[in-house]
Amino acid sequence: MGKSSRLKMAKNTNIRISLPAVCFVWQIAMIILFGVFIRYDEESDTHWIEHRRKKNISTNLENDFYYRYPSFQDVHVMIFVGFGFLMTFLKRYSFGGVGFNFLIAAFGIQWALLMQGWFHHLDEHDWKIKIGVENLINADFCVASCLIAYGACLGKVSPVQLMVLTLFGVTLFAVEEYIILELLHAKDAGGSMVIHTFGAYYGLTISWVLYRPLLSQSKHLQGSVYHSDVFAMIGTLFLWMYWPSFNSAIADHGDGQHRAVINTYLALASSVLTTFAISSISQNNGKLDMVHIQNATLAGGVAMGTASEFMITPYGSLIVGFCSGIVSTFGYLFLTPFMEKTLKIQDTCGIHNLHAMPGVIGGIVGAITAASASESVYGQEGLINTFDFKDAVANRTVNIQGGYQAAALFVAIAFGLVGGALVGGILKLPIWGDPADVNCFDDDVYWEVIVFFFFLNELKKKEPANFTS
Amino acid sequence: MGKSSRLKMAKNTNIRISLPAVCFVWQIAMIILFGVFIRYDEESDTHWIEHRRKKNISTNLENDFYYRYPSFQDVHVMIFVGFGFLMTFLKRYSFGGVGFNFLIAAFGIQWALLMQGWFHHLDEHDWKIKIGVENLINADFCVASCLIAYGACLGKVSPVQLMVLTLFGVTLFAVEEYIILELLHAKDAGGSMVIHTFGAYYGLTISWVLYRPLLSQSKHLQGSVYHSDVFAMIGTLFLWMYWPSFNSAIADHGDGQHRAVINTYLALASSVLTTFAISSISQNNGKLDMVHIQNATLAGGVAMGTASEFMITPYGSLIVGFCSGIVSTFGYLFLTPFMEKTLKIQDTCGIHNLHAMPGVIGGIVGAITAASASESVYGQEGLINTFDFKDAVANRTVNIQGGYQAAALFVAIAFGLVGGALVGGILKLPIWGDPADVNCFDDDVYWEVIVFFFFLNELKKKEPANFTS
Amino acid sequence: MGKSSRLKMAKNTNIRISLPAVCFVWQIAMIILFGVFIRYDEESDTHWIEHRRKKNISTNLENDFYYRYPSFQDVHVMIFVGFGFLMTFLKRYSFGGVGFNFLIAAFGIQWALLMQGWFHHLDEHDWKIKIGVENLINADFCVASCLIAYGACLGKVSPVQLMVLTLFGVTLFAVEEYIILELLHAKDAGGSMVIHTFGAYYGLTISWVLYRPLLSQSKHLQGSVYHSDVFAMIGTLFLWMYWPSFNSAIADHGDGQHRAVINTYLALASSVLTTFAISSISQNNGKLDMVHIQNATLAGGVAMGTASEFMITPYGSLIVGFCSGIVSTFGYLFLTPFMEKTLKIQDTCGIHNLHAMPGVIGGIVGAITAASASESVYGQEGLINTFDFKDAVANRTVNIQGGYQAAALFVAIAFGLVGGALVGGILKLPIWGDPADVNCFDDDVYWEVIVFFFFLNELKKKEPANFTS
Repeated sequence: MGKSSRLKMAKNTNIRISLPAVCFVWQIAMIILFGVFIRYDEESDTHWIEHRRKKNISTNLENDFYYRYPSFQDVHVMIFVGFGFLMTFLKRYSFGGVGFNFLIAAFGIQWALLMQGWFHHLDEHDWKIKIGVENLINADFCVASCLIAYGACLGKVSPVQLMVLTLFGVTLFAVEEYIILELLHAKDAGGSMVIHTFGAYYGLTISWVLYRPLLSQSKHLQGSVYHSDVFAMIGTLFLWMYWPSFNSAIADHGDGQHRAVINTYLALASSVLTTFAISSISQNNGKLDMVHIQNATLAGGVAMGTASEFMITPYGSLIVGFCSGIVSTFGYLFLTPFMEKTLKIQDTCGIHNLHAMPGVIGGIVGAITAASASESVYGQEGLINTFDFKDAVANRTVNIQGGYQAAALFVAIAFGLVGGALVGGILKLPIWGDPADVNCFDDDVYWEVIVFFFFLNELKKKEPANFTS
Repeated sequence: MGKSSRLKMAKNTNIRISLPAVCFVWQIAMIILFGVFIRYDEESDTHWIEHRRKKNISTNLENDFYYRYPSFQDVHVMIFVGFGFLMTFLKRYSFGGVGFNFLIAAFGIQWALLMQGWFHHLDEHDWKIKIGVENLINADFCVASCLIAYGACLGKVSPVQLMVLTLFGVTLFAVEEYIILELLHAKDAGGSMVIHTFGAYYGLTISWVLYRPLLSQSKHLQGSVYHSDVFAMIGTLFLWMYWPSFNSAIADHGDGQHRAVINTYLALASSVLTTFAISSISQNNGKLDMVHIQNATLAGGVAMGTASEFMITPYGSLIVGFCSGIVSTFGYLFLTPFMEKTLKIQDTCGIHNLHAMPGVIGGIVGAITAASASESVYGQEGLINTFDFKDAVANRTVNIQGGYQAAALFVAIAFGLVGGALVGGILKLPIWGDPADVNCFDDDVYWEVIVFFFFLNELKKKEPANFTS
Repeated sequence: MGKSSRLKMAKNTNIRISLPAVCFVWQIAMIILFGVFIRYDEESDTHWIEHRRKKNISTNLENDFYYRYPSFQDVHVMIFVGFGFLMTFLKRYSFGGVGFNFLIAAFGIQWALLMQGWFHHLDEHDWKIKIGVENLINADFCVASCLIAYGACLGKVSPVQLMVLTLFGVTLFAVEEYIILELLHAKDAGGSMVIHTFGAYYGLTISWVLYRPLLSQSKHLQGSVYHSDVFAMIGTLFLWMYWPSFNSAIADHGDGQHRAVINTYLALASSVLTTFAISSISQNNGKLDMVHIQNATLAGGVAMGTASEFMITPYGSLIVGFCSGIVSTFGYLFLTPFMEKTLKIQDTCGIHNLHAMPGVIGGIVGAITAASASESVYGQEGLINTFDFKDAVANRTVNIQGGYQAAALFVAIAFGLVGGALVGGILKLPIWGDPADVNCFDDDVYWEVIVFFFFLNELKKKEPANFTS
């Protein structure tokens, strides 16, 4: 125990000043900035009734709330329970997985409302940001990219570092999103590029900068136990089930949302089967690996993010899921070990396999599908509506749109890599209370944990005779 | 250990070829068949805007998506988290419970879209199946019957067998559903007959064919531990809470969906109380049994499946829940042991008590309620709308409808029994990699499981002095 | 073991007669009362189609079902999974936490439909209560107050006592709600006062009456283990995520629901950050305490209950969450121990910190926000709509409204205190089968629990050599 204690002392993981300071100061900053900038939009303001009359809107149901609220709640569950519980799989880092996910998401959504508001929704007349349910969805989306990045760093960073990662992550996201959606006018309803590709490369680069050569010292904690794997399945399933809502939440009213749901539903189903297949084929006796089932089954949802609104056809969706399930599972089998050994990238949750590669696939699929869109398939109006070919881009052709989609993918990757290197450098400063290599993946560093009191107590109470029952 | 190893060797549970082969080949077949047959319907196609204009539909909200999507997502949660987690109750088969449920549901929904499409939605002009959100709900419904059947076989079959069970189960379901809903024109919005009765008898007959005389060899694994019972409660509660959505998901727009929710909500509440009552009265000191609470509390939802749309009245719903909770709990107490001993039916999850009996009750309740419907209660138009007395059945009376409802129940049972015997025979072939009797209920056969590494490690690390804390 | 056995004998916890009797008799009473009083309303009755024509309603979507059903399902999840799993945190009382929550909620919603119906929805013509989806939401709300009260008594009462607590709790709730909403015409969409303040003081007073001086005898069970804390996080997160639905479920159609969601979303996010801050600052090395994270993060939702519909502004919501997170966490740190020691109130879940104080904050915030409402902010129509200034209260000013809001808060507290004292006295009778002090927090008293069979078995099976792996 002596050696372990000394190593524990080697790094100062005391966050009693830094964490409360960051939480308080940033939250107060949020209050001030919200006071200056954020207001209700015309659909959530009491003047809605006058707005309705002016615009001749016949029913309250036309309030965007009723189009989007069910999807919003599903996305909300994905962010907090989906991502949170997916990260409980480590045997002694379940508190950190679900708890820090909770903390940074709660901060990130506030900061995202501001950042995205400034870039996309700033009212030119009064310089206010007017928010409604669509802004809440977009804020959840934005935070998702930071939670993905957290996946690469899980167990190796302090909550203060995570707050910093989120602060910059949301900022970078808003700029990248502005370039991709507004300047390039690319489509990305479910965020294959904007959310997944960016988030994954952002996290992987940070993890690369923060490389820990002696991480094997905490190897005994870098795995799951039986019940932690079942907890993680809660996260997997809520992500999997609600992914159709994720990819359709901000799609066009009517057929847009409807089609995005069908495409995503099918892609996800398909990737489950290929994940099981590759997982089984790779092990003795065909035994399945929970890591694959928990993660690669979701690849279809990631890869369907960009094209979900398009007329990719139902069998096209199945093919996307088919391929991404295979690629993702192979990633867990071969790429993750290779990256750790050769590229010095330690990727705790394997986000490269679940988000980076399927995200890139999604971007490419989106570019190809857009480039091959035609009036004969979409209808004249349908084509214009789906790609928003109006105003400044009224004359854009589908081929050019395909090119812009491809460009958008590179923007997402570039923002991830450059942003990650930058933020990684900041996080390397020795002031954030990160754990020593030997203390990684251990909740005991940042949480009050009563280890095994109960189990030992129960064992103690039993009389020897009972052991044979 | 020697004897155990020998027994383990006795059966070849290697699925390294068969499982990947089944997953790949069937998924590729799905892609081809989807390519040939499946297209978006007019509400999920980009031509929706033209369709709207042609049909003079004033708002996007009239897209069926907005009527049914929230219910669809609830049903989706029931299928994957509800059924999945309900089957995690076994102490060492939680991976198999939730994991294989995931696999076969993901396959089944694809196959169901095709099978149900061919029978119900084939466009006569172009021989395509046009899908929308209602098809997704129906596919989930169809798969539910196979997941119910899985409940009887839990822990005793290989994933390859489960895929076969699902392939034939979905096929049988589509035929049975066609006969009941189209030919007999019976009503069954929540599927008491079509889903629950059929699924349960299908699974029970399979289990009877696959009878394992030496199953007691794995008796030490055929139970729960404390936390696996809490995991199972996640499944129970998500099934219980969302059952009103299940029974209303494809009910008529407007009052139909509304009434189905109220009836199901009440029946479920009532069966909780009688389940607790019977569970308590049956044990020393009135101690409750988690098996009853996890299962019989749901009986009210099953039994309200057929009549949920009808004017059964709120107190009628309470009575249905009251009776089915009692019947179901008594089933767990007396019928399951009797069936195992005398009828040689080993029913791991007790689906006879949760699905078969309440399903039959539901069918009977539906027949009686239909036969006693009247214009004075329903209103003239209401009666026609509720029972769809138009076109070919425009002159049907409620008495005759009651008769057809009863006939439908027999069709469901017959399909379950005959289909189960057939499929059971196929599954008996010694090629599917099923476990030996001694290895049943053990995840170790099909999953990479690291047993107890952590717990032992922790124990090891503790110094003796700490044991007394 | 001898002494423990003797203590166990000291109290009769046999509920084999009483629990089934209560469940059966009360459920039968429900059926009879429902038969006499409860009918479908015009939106869930088959006459809806005639009602539509008469009222010239253009679409089925105007059925209230489509406005409120998604929110209803979210609230339903909060009641059964949210409250249920939040109470699984105790190491050996997870069955009781989630199971008894299930039982009393299932009974309570039935009784609430009657009680609230008699007070609010009794049809003057035929003396029937006509129910629809809004009644279901209100029944869930009503039950929430009893589940809050359960939180104070968790582990220390028998299920029979809980049924009595719920019977009277629902009754008191309906009266209190009638006074506050109808007589005082106060607004309380999310129930800061009606639900949280009343429920908390009701439970705390009961716990005070049932004070157990020797509760420390079961101290070894009055805490969590690692995985029970993760289970509790399921409850926390589902409460947190769906709280916007809770506060908006019965708000006005259109901007009312929309605004309530935004306000609650923001208040909750804000209270997460201050909870983490105070939790960290209060412990050595800044280690976080799971009790705080599981509970105080929700304070923002409670405190936003009354003002959620008002134009409190987005930054106003952040401030409310900011303060209530701090107050709630300080409560766990200092008030709970003080209350137990000095005031003799044993509050298992700390409901005083999560519901009483934030509820009172919510009531005060509501009163102030109402009193400071103005036509310039709300618009003339908006002000009337938001506060329902019509009919009998058409001439009420916002200042007077503020006064009535404050009066409502006192009514809620008074009903909690007086009702709790009364019901506490009833529950003190020695006939309810409550556990002895030494047997508190132990599922073994009311549940069939197989303790540790599996773990010991596994240990036994291992050969010594394996222990060193």
